[in-house]
Amino acid sequence: MSAVSRAASRPASRAPSGRLLYAQSGGVTAVINATAAGVIETARTRGVKVLAARNGILGVLREQLIDTSKESKGAIAALRHTPGGAFGSCRYKLKSLEANRAEYERLIEVFRAHDIRWFLYNGGNDSADTALKISQLGKAMNYDIRCIGVPKTVDNDLAVTDCCPGFGSVAKYIAVSTREASLDVASMADTSTKVFVLEVMGRHAGWIAAAAGLAGEGADAAPHVILFPENVFDEAAFLAKVKATVERVGWCTVVASEGVRHADGRFLAEGGSRDAFGHAQLGGVAPLLAALVKEKLGCKVHWAVPDYLQRSARHLASKADAEQAYAVGKAAVEYALAGMNAVMPVIVRTSDAPYRWKVDAAPLAKIANREKKMPRSFITRDGFGITAAARRYLAPLIQGEAPLPYGKHGLPDYVELRNTAVASRLPPLAGA
Amino acid sequence: MSAVSRAASRPASRAPSGRLLYAQSGGVTAVINATAAGVIETARTRGVKVLAARNGILGVLREQLIDTSKESKGAIAALRHTPGGAFGSCRYKLKSLEANRAEYERLIEVFRAHDIRWFLYNGGNDSADTALKISQLGKAMNYDIRCIGVPKTVDNDLAVTDCCPGFGSVAKYIAVSTREASLDVASMADTSTKVFVLEVMGRHAGWIAAAAGLAGEGADAAPHVILFPENVFDEAAFLAKVKATVERVGWCTVVASEGVRHADGRFLAEGGSRDAFGHAQLGGVAPLLAALVKEKLGCKVHWAVPDYLQRSARHLASKADAEQAYAVGKAAVEYALAGMNAVMPVIVRTSDAPYRWKVDAAPLAKIANREKKMPRSFITRDGFGITAAARRYLAPLIQGEAPLPYGKHGLPDYVELRNTAVASRLPPLAGA
Repeated sequence: MSAVSRAASRPASRAPSGRLLYAQSGGVTAVINATAAGVIETARTRGVKVLAARNGILGVLREQLIDTSKESKGAIAALRHTPGGAFGSCRYKLKSLEANRAEYERLIEVFRAHDIRWFLYNGGNDSADTALKISQLGKAMNYDIRCIGVPKTVDNDLAVTDCCPGFGSVAKYIAVSTREASLDVASMADTSTKVFVLEVMGRHAGWIAAAAGLAGEGADAAPHVILFPENVFDEAAFLAKVKATVERVGWCTVVASEGVRHADGRFLAEGGSRDAFGHAQLGGVAPLLAALVKEKLGCKVHWAVPDYLQRSARHLASKADAEQAYAVGKAAVEYALAGMNAVMPVIVRTSDAPYRWKVDAAPLAKIANREKKMPRSFITRDGFGITAAARRYLAPLIQGEAPLPYGKHGLPDYVELRNTAVASRLPPLAGA
Repeated sequence: MSAVSRAASRPASRAPSGRLLYAQSGGVTAVINATAAGVIETARTRGVKVLAARNGILGVLREQLIDTSKESKGAIAALRHTPGGAFGSCRYKLKSLEANRAEYERLIEVFRAHDIRWFLYNGGNDSADTALKISQLGKAMNYDIRCIGVPKTVDNDLAVTDCCPGFGSVAKYIAVSTREASLDVASMADTSTKVFVLEVMGRHAGWIAAAAGLAGEGADAAPHVILFPENVFDEAAFLAKVKATVERVGWCTVVASEGVRHADGRFLAEGGSRDAFGHAQLGGVAPLLAALVKEKLGCKVHWAVPDYLQRSARHLASKADAEQAYAVGKAAVEYALAGMNAVMPVIVRTSDAPYRWKVDAAPLAKIANREKKMPRSFITRDGFGITAAARRYLAPLIQGEAPLPYGKHGLPDYVELRNTAVASRLPPLAGA
């Protein structure tokens, strides 16, 4: 990484010329727009015009570009506290250059038509792959383009970086919500609900489920049972733990990752359940676990699935997360303008307590298409809780609040950008 | 109400003697403990000792009483920002005096043993009924007890009062969450989720569902479709509205009350659905609607059920709600010590904009066992939205924030009371 770091600090050989294109990709988060603010504000101070692609890489292919210079300073600043993706995002993975050369030719055509010399792609694993492919186009297609991946994912599963912008805020939301709902359950358990099941995101890695563990510490504190996608679901052990907790504590909070699996690899939630009309039910491991507990243990159960609420809850964002999201946007512009290519600004932790971190550049090749699972050492031996090592890692990520302005109406003052379209310079893409 | 009000302002004929008993009942809220703080702090300034019953009226029957004088001033103040029920709550309805005289005799026995002269019961419709019954015991059982009902319910369905403490905070949570999740959906709709279904509480009255309408205004703003329990579910009209919204806006947010019903009165959610193992599924109108939309319209759907998260989310409480919760606790003590009986402090709205309100006393007989539905005039003609009248009523209730202290760990500093038990003075109740 040191060679890359040196490159970052190397002064640009010439004054920046051309435009910088920024695009958001994959599932959005509470703080991805803070990254956008970091990108745009930093580029503005360097005199570089930022275009944004509508709906991620698709906006490039379709030549649907947005001129961010039409947005006021205040509007860009307000992105720092506005959840969702201000320019639209997409789920779309580029094929390899060999498999779909026409697509890459179109990208270059659009870059060239709008004099785009830097492309910043803000996303997760798949987007890092896209960014890496585009970074390699310069030579292959004889067009000078630098591409920087910018990290974002609530799943916290990107390689190299210590954590992913977006994760800290969902972690804080889940930890706080677990604590609040558990206070509710504790109040009512004598005559009402005894088991509460909270389903959280994280289909392949249990980072978000683990964050729920920050809600309390000690055997009697909620959450009492965490189900990780890293473990095979053991129905008997699960029911035994819930039963023992209800008998000892009086009630039990269960946090289950949406990705909990059977031994054969099937998700619990893909059971092919049907409602009374024979319609296939959509997902939901929480209702399934609730039904199981009710049937086998006979106690009253409630369940919750916050779904998108957890990853869009900017009102409860983590300060560290919001700051890191901004910082990687800022660094990405600095790397790009310094002539770097095929890198991603990542978070490097230098101290657990007090929490200290810095941003450094890492090669996209070490990040694209990899997936960082939770270390086995983060899960307690019985499989249902988090260890002290996990707490050391997770605790700093939810520290601090990131307050946001509320309007007179009692709602957060979220900004809606104008998103002024850049006039097309090319014939439309067939089929786009 | 004026006679009662006069009574409230009448000076107590003698210095208070005896203890005041406070109990929490029914589903808890984000601010019911603020009411407890109002009760305890007010009684302390009047030199009256407050006992609390563990788990509502059951704690009285079981003689499980808590000595709140063992709690520090700071702990009681922290109740103002701690969700859940600090003393425990219960779902338990007293039978009539004729049907179960023994139960009432036990209550009086416990009151007498602990010199309880005032009983404050903090709950909803059923609890108002319990409070009314106890208020009538004085004459029937020759024991001087005054009973005050104290309002609390997220359902906002208590008669007489303009609104119910607990409702404003869940309303704010749902309005903010609807807005945040909709920003997420809007970002992703081009290639991913096009319809998002959020299920909210309110089995019999659509107040919480209506509050989601505050998230936006205008035909294209989320939520685009609200399903109220006041209306019969019309599948064809629902699907047509969702389809038209997706075609026009590109995506659609649906907010559905858990109490949405078929024409024959059955809840949509009680469809007797079964998972792949043949287990009965527990409730959930959101997954059911999501499956319907997916099947009939063929678009990608996500759904969320925040369940207890919505009513325990003190981190996003409404300022007006938190203040009213405290105010009714304070007023209840003042009414009790002034010698009033069989009343409830209610919220009287004196102005919509600026929002102004006061507390006044209303007879429990006008509140017990009644249910306030939403006026028909609050629902738009097509049945899927809220009217300007509804906005005028609802908007003030979510105004203002009620910030709370966070600890270094990044979680709210919620208090856990000592809950020191008062020594029993009676033989245990058989079977309790």
